[in-house]
Amino acid sequence: MKSPDAFNLAKLPSRAPAEFHKTATLRQMKSVKQELIALQDRLYAENKRSILVVLQGMDASGKDGLIRRVFSGLNPQGVRVHSFKEPTELELAHDFLWRVHQQTPPKGMIHVFNRSHYEDVLVTRVQGLITPEEARRRFVAINNFEKLLQQAGTTVLKFYLHVSEKEQRERLEERVTDPEKRWKYEAGDEDKAKQWPAYRAVYEDVFEHCNPATCPWQLVPADQNWYKAFAVAKTLHDTLVELDPQYPSSKDERPKAEATR
Amino acid sequence: MKSPDAFNLAKLPSRAPAEFHKTATLRQMKSVKQELIALQDRLYAENKRSILVVLQGMDASGKDGLIRRVFSGLNPQGVRVHSFKEPTELELAHDFLWRVHQQTPPKGMIHVFNRSHYEDVLVTRVQGLITPEEARRRFVAINNFEKLLQQAGTTVLKFYLHVSEKEQRERLEERVTDPEKRWKYEAGDEDKAKQWPAYRAVYEDVFEHCNPATCPWQLVPADQNWYKAFAVAKTLHDTLVELDPQYPSSKDERPKAEATR
Repeated sequence: MKSPDAFNLAKLPSRAPAEFHKTATLRQMKSVKQELIALQDRLYAENKRSILVVLQGMDASGKDGLIRRVFSGLNPQGVRVHSFKEPTELELAHDFLWRVHQQTPPKGMIHVFNRSHYEDVLVTRVQGLITPEEARRRFVAINNFEKLLQQAGTTVLKFYLHVSEKEQRERLEERVTDPEKRWKYEAGDEDKAKQWPAYRAVYEDVFEHCNPATCPWQLVPADQNWYKAFAVAKTLHDTLVELDPQYPSSKDERPKAEATR
Repeated sequence: MKSPDAFNLAKLPSRAPAEFHKTATLRQMKSVKQELIALQDRLYAENKRSILVVLQGMDASGKDGLIRRVFSGLNPQGVRVHSFKEPTELELAHDFLWRVHQQTPPKGMIHVFNRSHYEDVLVTRVQGLITPEEARRRFVAINNFEKLLQQAGTTVLKFYLHVSEKEQRERLEERVTDPEKRWKYEAGDEDKAKQWPAYRAVYEDVFEHCNPATCPWQLVPADQNWYKAFAVAKTLHDTLVELDPQYPSSKDERPKAEATR
């Protein structure tokens, strides 16, 4: 039974747990990355299972930087990042999972969703584009969809990068003052900072309704880049250790997908 | 409550009900087609809803001919037929609904599936490629999938073209003897006739598990081409009359999909 505060984002830590220190964590990150590279190579060669990494977080929670820190160095042939932008007219002419389903990973691959189908129950609600009833229907559809992927051999890892209201405001302000970050600034960034409480509410709703034991959210403290990258890399690493993918004994033995239909 | 024989294909009529006569039905078909053309034009112009026609039937049940009879004459810009063949290696590397979801109709369109996601619980079972447990998981996934489409404004019409064991055998034999049908013959056609009972069993299972009141199967007697085409055209016609699509008052008023997100 979850405590009433289980998904209270105002009380969720946004900074690394006390036992983590930057220098030691960065050193540990190096060895985790080395192992990750080897494990991914085996996943790709084995060609039997796949991994979907779903990254969500408010604006300026550092999704782009995290992708660079965690996935650079892996064999790009086995990793694909897909960023979901504002839907096109064609995409909106279909059900909300249509464009997302097309980008799910085939066997052997790791796909990373930089934003995802969850935006369809987040930004759409903050902007009032869908009703609460439609949101509830979508929660069910999302749970069904993730189950379908899991049954087909895809491990679904969902990360929420949690920045505090204060940290988010500072990062959005840096986009104005820091010349190297200026390119990320866009009109409306000032308003985004004010939307923290609105996003908090819809995220809490997602964590309540799309969080089955078989496909849980990982809530990652994200005020410090070194910690959040480590947390995500370590989870991915441990998942791969668990999957324990094996090299086929020859190219002929590498299963064609037919064999697992 | 369904009778125990509700889906007993051996007892299901494969010939037109007694009140239908060929000449009169062909005449009625002409007027149904005329109205269908007008209704489809409105569906396309309105750009708010869509229709998915799922066609299933055993080999030689006449799916190709039916598509020609029912859909020729409609505006091809608003109709798309998709034939699902043996899955490719890329398709098999994803969940079974991945390739199907890509072909669902956007708003304004009628899509016709010549064979469909149902093959993944039919031929796969006759050939022993999936376990009964996997079949049951797929039944649930199919029901969820069709519900997702319906919630996004797609009407899903599912037709099973029912040929008797005897009629199927005769049609398969004609492929050998009739020079105009010879091109349809392929090695193994003789075996297909023997598989009628095996297909009957898996079809009956589908009609039991993927037949919610909100998305029922239409079992169409299909030994006579003139009747089955009429039955499908009339159902599509009546569905469109029910949807009652309206012309927008101007091109600007034609809704962009955004409006209905």
